[in-house]
Amino acid sequence: MTKSTSDRPGEFELIAEFFAPLSTAPGAFGLTDDAALLSVPPGQELVITTDALLEGIHFFSTDPPDLVARKALRVNLSDLAAKGAQPVGYLLALSLPAHRGRAWLQGFVEGLTLDQHEFAVSLMGGDTTRTSGPLTLVITAFGHVPQGTMLRRAGACPGDIVFVSGTIGDAGGGLACAKEQALLQGQQREYLLNRLQLPEPRIRLGLALRCVASASIDVSDGLVSDLGHIATASGVGIEIEGAQVPLSPELCSLWREPKHRLLRATTAGDDYEIAFTAPTGRQEEVVALGIQLGLQVTEIGRVIPGAGVALLDPSRRQIPVTQPGYAHF
Amino acid sequence: MTKSTSDRPGEFELIAEFFAPLSTAPGAFGLTDDAALLSVPPGQELVITTDALLEGIHFFSTDPPDLVARKALRVNLSDLAAKGAQPVGYLLALSLPAHRGRAWLQGFVEGLTLDQHEFAVSLMGGDTTRTSGPLTLVITAFGHVPQGTMLRRAGACPGDIVFVSGTIGDAGGGLACAKEQALLQGQQREYLLNRLQLPEPRIRLGLALRCVASASIDVSDGLVSDLGHIATASGVGIEIEGAQVPLSPELCSLWREPKHRLLRATTAGDDYEIAFTAPTGRQEEVVALGIQLGLQVTEIGRVIPGAGVALLDPSRRQIPVTQPGYAHF
Repeated sequence: MTKSTSDRPGEFELIAEFFAPLSTAPGAFGLTDDAALLSVPPGQELVITTDALLEGIHFFSTDPPDLVARKALRVNLSDLAAKGAQPVGYLLALSLPAHRGRAWLQGFVEGLTLDQHEFAVSLMGGDTTRTSGPLTLVITAFGHVPQGTMLRRAGACPGDIVFVSGTIGDAGGGLACAKEQALLQGQQREYLLNRLQLPEPRIRLGLALRCVASASIDVSDGLVSDLGHIATASGVGIEIEGAQVPLSPELCSLWREPKHRLLRATTAGDDYEIAFTAPTGRQEEVVALGIQLGLQVTEIGRVIPGAGVALLDPSRRQIPVTQPGYAHF
Repeated sequence: MTKSTSDRPGEFELIAEFFAPLSTAPGAFGLTDDAALLSVPPGQELVITTDALLEGIHFFSTDPPDLVARKALRVNLSDLAAKGAQPVGYLLALSLPAHRGRAWLQGFVEGLTLDQHEFAVSLMGGDTTRTSGPLTLVITAFGHVPQGTMLRRAGACPGDIVFVSGTIGDAGGGLACAKEQALLQGQQREYLLNRLQLPEPRIRLGLALRCVASASIDVSDGLVSDLGHIATASGVGIEIEGAQVPLSPELCSLWREPKHRLLRATTAGDDYEIAFTAPTGRQEEVVALGIQLGLQVTEIGRVIPGAGVALLDPSRRQIPVTQPGYAHF
């Protein structure tokens, strides 16, 4: 296929010029077929997840296209990470408004190229259409787990300890910064914006947790909300020690009132850290894991009999949470 | 989760009330986890395809929601059929405008329920978001093939015969009827509209073709365009005998001028029949297959050395085709 100099490439040209080079796996057939072929190694199972990102909801219209692409891929890889899966590939369904031309697509593909290298995944296929609405990206990602080892939301037992990776609330802080120029400056501002725009899927941690965690989820809606999903699926309650929730110095600079900061941090979405539970007997193993991976892993609470999530203050009084996480609707 | 009487269900409620009952496979976990788990039987491979349907492009805003759902699922199952795969499940990413409430969702889910039974597939997971744009549906479907038997676009050889299932152009006729009330009436009109709104994925044919066809594709963009994909991928040319292209009596009533009718039929999209090639030695097998399945399978042309697709009139003169198929962009 020849390259067009038009700023509005047609569908087949778009695939050949921009997306085919991303299809590095043999089963993607260079995007020249209707479907992709996946071989799952013996003894392994396939973990599949899909997430949509819409302009104006999940990212700003003015966000650089490479970061939009990388975030779309990373939020899906984060789901795989939380399930203990090794990512292998993804499909991309792209609905593109007419004003997004060649330059935008080039940036978008550059972002995907970078992250395909970083996370060793291949584009396996997809679909492209024009839309009169907002840019809509649907990514479906695949990964492998050894049979029977996928981490579930269900599985937490009373007595288990609750852990979380990294720091919580940074992306929420980044979102506040993106909306208000005056909030924070310099490196602190950059750090929080980066945490919003370029989340870090905790794949190595997820792989290591396969035989350690009793339940696991990635923090996408908000810590309280997502631990609520573990509580519901496991049929247990969860207590979070508010004072133990790991917060970055940058977030502490942004929001100086401790209670307000804690509430914002634990109910903001987009962290893409892993929240998980593990039996008390595995506590040292978890700590060692964090050190080995060079990743902060913090004990933040306990699984208890009952239901729901309670966020506790240092006197073990429950802090009321009116909106536990991001509502998509 | 309790049922709300609101017409605007929230995301978790929407999943629990409408979509969880569709997740009948064990690896879907009743949609209570972040990802689905797929086991691929030993000796089998997974075929994966994704297609987006947008309101105003792929279906009308006024189309009944059950038919929108069934078409979205069926166009994906048709891709699997053309690859020789046995469908097993699908993911659904739904971007829903605010004015689509409970009644629309109920109809939508009823449509999916019907087709899940008909095609023995399960919803495995998905994502739901609100959109300010047109309703956008992305379905990703999975199927199994015995290792090494997936039908490809590549594989057609000079000398092979070109076949197509069913009749061609009916959906294009249906689209013309949908746009113009005055075109055709009664059962003939209903037939063509039905062919547009409720395509029939040729799954049994696809399964039977695994060891017979040399190349295969489903007719979604238009017969000339899709055979062009086989020609390109296989590095061959294809001649279509225009007079052999199977047309329904209804389409012949709609468009009475033969040459115009043939051009419309072979360049309209949305047929979802299977176009395939097979070696001359397999011709009788293909004919027997059609009889066994009770499905019209028609020989329409030949694979030749060279490139591209030529649509021939009865004197073997090439009929010029300016727009070989539906352009998505």
